Amino acid sequence: MSDEPNESELRPGEVAVGLPAVTDAGVYFIGTIHTPWRTRSECPKRGSADGPVCSIVVDPRWREALTDITQHTRIQVLYWMHRARRDLVLQTPFRTGLTTGSFALRSPVRPNPIASSVVELVGVDGTTLQVRGLDCLDGTPLIDLKPERTSH
Amino acid sequence: MSDEPNESELRPGEVAVGLPAVTDAGVYFIGTIHTPWRTRSECPKRGSADGPVCSIVVDPRWREALTDITQHTRIQVLYWMHRARRDLVLQTPFRTGLTTGSFALRSPVRPNPIASSVVELVGVDGTTLQVRGLDCLDGTPLIDLKPERTSH
Repeated sequence: MSDEPNESELRPGEVAVGLPAVTDAGVYFIGTIHTPWRTRSECPKRGSADGPVCSIVVDPRWREALTDITQHTRIQVLYWMHRARRDLVLQTPFRTGLTTGSFALRSPVRPNPIASSVVELVGVDGTTLQVRGLDCLDGTPLIDLKPERTSH
Repeated sequence: MSDEPNESELRPGEVAVGLPAVTDAGVYFIGTIHTPWRTRSECPKRGSADGPVCSIVVDPRWREALTDITQHTRIQVLYWMHRARRDLVLQTPFRTGLTTGSFALRSPVRPNPIASSVVELVGVDGTTLQVRGLDCLDGTPLIDLKPERTSH
């Protein structure tokens, strides 16, 4: 698994910057997300509560941190989009063809490729959660689970 | 700025685990959040749209990534809770006194101390955003900005 930028070329209007020489903090991958989607093009643009049940397998080290998770039906999942390049400040999404800033998009391509999705918790078996609402690649590293907080 | 666990003692029922020897990916701090709150006890439990205007200062490297940000009024902010310990799997929040799993809480204490807040964008001046709805410490490192997506 690598954080290196991938080899894809820039689209018209896209701008890359030099990345800082060092990172400032470290993330632990705390589990793995399993979905039916093996390539970016297969992934739905946005997860749906009508979508397939996917699995989130939490590493045994964190087992006790799942205590009482079933008291919540909507869970915020943070995950690491490990295949995304991190150096684009302007992007031209294929779907729109419009160039805009990375912080004005929810694209995987951003300085810190952290995604946030809200899922419905369908079931828990040991350290495996069954959820609906994801749209990420099979094998995506998990970095956090939190009860959803209704946005204000 | 340190990622080390702080010196606070465990409360009744709390359980710490050994952290992995290495992290799996690196995060860049891409800016700094300025709020009126200098200590954890001063921070509101939850940011409010009626709360004070706070500033998010983005590092100049990422300036172009803010292009078109003003087309969005509600922004999801990810930040790094740099003072939180990372090794607790069971926690006993002071407010409730009830012991529960870290993933069933939105506490700062979690394997990856990443917070997610949705804020109202009040204004932008260069690389500084004025927003309402934060509840974090002054000086908190910024790690991402995204347009809010209504949760499904």
